[in-house]
Amino acid sequence: MAIGVKALPFTFVAHGLGLAGAVMVLVWCIYYLGGLAFESTNKNLIFNIHPVLMLIGLVIIGGQAIMSYKSLTLRKEVKKLIHLVLHAIAIILGIIGIYAVFKNHNESGIANLYSLHSWIGITLISLYGIQWIYGFVVFFFPGGSATVRSESLPWHVLFGLFVYVLVVGNAALGFLEKLTFLENSGLAKFSSEAILVNFTAIVAILYGVFVFLTAISQSSQPEDDFSYSSI
Amino acid sequence: MAIGVKALPFTFVAHGLGLAGAVMVLVWCIYYLGGLAFESTNKNLIFNIHPVLMLIGLVIIGGQAIMSYKSLTLRKEVKKLIHLVLHAIAIILGIIGIYAVFKNHNESGIANLYSLHSWIGITLISLYGIQWIYGFVVFFFPGGSATVRSESLPWHVLFGLFVYVLVVGNAALGFLEKLTFLENSGLAKFSSEAILVNFTAIVAILYGVFVFLTAISQSSQPEDDFSYSSI
Ligand code: HEM
Ligand code: HEM
Ligand code: HEM
Ligand code: HEM
Repeated sequence: MAIGVKALPFTFVAHGLGLAGAVMVLVWCIYYLGGLAFESTNKNLIFNIHPVLMLIGLVIIGGQAIMSYKSLTLRKEVKKLIHLVLHAIAIILGIIGIYAVFKNHNESGIANLYSLHSWIGITLISLYGIQWIYGFVVFFFPGGSATVRSESLPWHVLFGLFVYVLVVGNAALGFLEKLTFLENSGLAKFSSEAILVNFTAIVAILYGVFVFLTAISQSSQPEDDFSYSSI
Repeated sequence: MAIGVKALPFTFVAHGLGLAGAVMVLVWCIYYLGGLAFESTNKNLIFNIHPVLMLIGLVIIGGQAIMSYKSLTLRKEVKKLIHLVLHAIAIILGIIGIYAVFKNHNESGIANLYSLHSWIGITLISLYGIQWIYGFVVFFFPGGSATVRSESLPWHVLFGLFVYVLVVGNAALGFLEKLTFLENSGLAKFSSEAILVNFTAIVAILYGVFVFLTAISQSSQPEDDFSYSSI
């Protein structure tokens, strides 16, 4: 699925966007929304953990995990370990982030799992986990035969990109949903906060686009492009 | 960008999902939301045109346009004409649908273009139009040289799929936004209407997934796969 351009420039843009997105979500949740807390009488502070961990975890670190094969010039075995560990961090932050919003809902008496965002979200964290376990078993330990590995790699890439694209889309749904709640409780539509949140979502989508472009472009270690066979 | 499976079965699933999605959005807007109208003192009826035309136009007919190269077994020139005409219908319905929501906003005193959904939406209809004009000029009339056509085709496919994926994602944002408005004005979170709207969005996303899978799979007329050179 490789297009005939080099991946490296895309990774640079993605890094800039990822950094911007992380700063923006922190400014929003800490400065505008009052901060993060796991225990608090102000239940909104528990919610605030959710956007921060979902964006920095699943979206940004998950994207770094995907790009690591193209952004780093290391031996394949090392890059595989980095890919695997970054994805593990992404999933763990994702699970803690989802736990936070369930905790907030339960302590505030709000129903769980009623929205499109939450249904897609719970599906995606499960698919992400399945993809991780499959990747671990087939490509890392104990590892499938050379045939199994080379035949399943294109599907790993396709399914991985599919889940990742939906993760980014679902993050956008989340931003829109939270902002709509705030606007319904009186936040002005063109206030600096509203503009910040919308631009955070746009930066996240653009980051996802550059992660995707990285994955379908060419490695600067050409021997790596789908060379997955023996290791 | 072709994966080694046949496209045709994907197109069958997509047709079923597309039909279901069209019925669902009509049931929602006509039965639950009270119907469609361009002129009415009930401004909500003007809004209702928006989801119907965006889903049936840009998402469903736009998807049919993309799949037409794989779902039909006709001569390339004929399929190109169908692709072009279906995309034109998609764009026109999209423009009318966006016009309807601007009309509803203006007549109800609601600000225009304040939301993430609207910003992405206005960008996408523009990109869709650019893609159409580029496709028309390069592949249809007057038509570029054989080199220009064969070099730009992969980019046409990549950019076309990119815009299409964002269109489907933006439709999901729209459903979530409208449902959140309704829930904030008292609609129960697990009412039949809420479930219907969320499932319409899910059917739309699955339709988009099958359109995408169709486009990256193999034609049953193998001479067609990126054979774009002379016609
Ligand atoms: C892509 C990563 C994300 C995933 C997988 C995800 C997943 C979830 C899940 C499973 C819930 C349901 C919790 C419950 O029902 O108790 C939820 C709720 C929520 N999330 Fe996210 N989320 C993500 C990103 C975000 C982001 C970036 C925001 C931005 C503010 C956000 C805003 C919300 C809001 C407002 C709720 C509560 C309302 C609701 O249940 O829909 N989410 N999320
Ligand atoms: C233990 C976990 C995992 C292992 C061992 C693993 C292993 C691999 C391997 C060996 C490659 C091939 C790189 C190449 O030859 O180009 C790869 C690529 C890829 N993986 Fe994973 N993976 C794991 C988890 C995941 C997860 C959870 C996702 C996403 C949800 C994912 C998404 C991708 C993508 C998109 C690529 C393509 C990257 C590119 O070609 O630039 N992987 N993975
Ligand atoms: C993918 C196709 C779609 C595009 C390109 C699109 C585009 C737009 C645009 C440009 C606006 C702004 C109008 C204004 O500011 O006056 C808008 C508003 C709106 N759309 Fe869509 N739309 C799409 C699909 C949908 C769907 C399927 C729904 C489902 C209900 C929906 C719900 C809304 C709502 C509630 C508004 C008003 C609030 C707002 O401005 O965000 N849209 N849409
Ligand atoms: C006048 C308008 C257009 C013309 C003349 C045109 C022409 C073409 C041609 C010649 C192909 C090559 C098919 C092949 O050889 O496999 C193609 C494929 C494609 N076009 Fe267009 N196109 C137009 C508009 C659009 C628009 C507006 C979009 C989407 C926004 C789009 C998306 C696609 C996609 C995704 C494919 C890949 C389909 C596949 O390979 O299964 N096109 N188009």
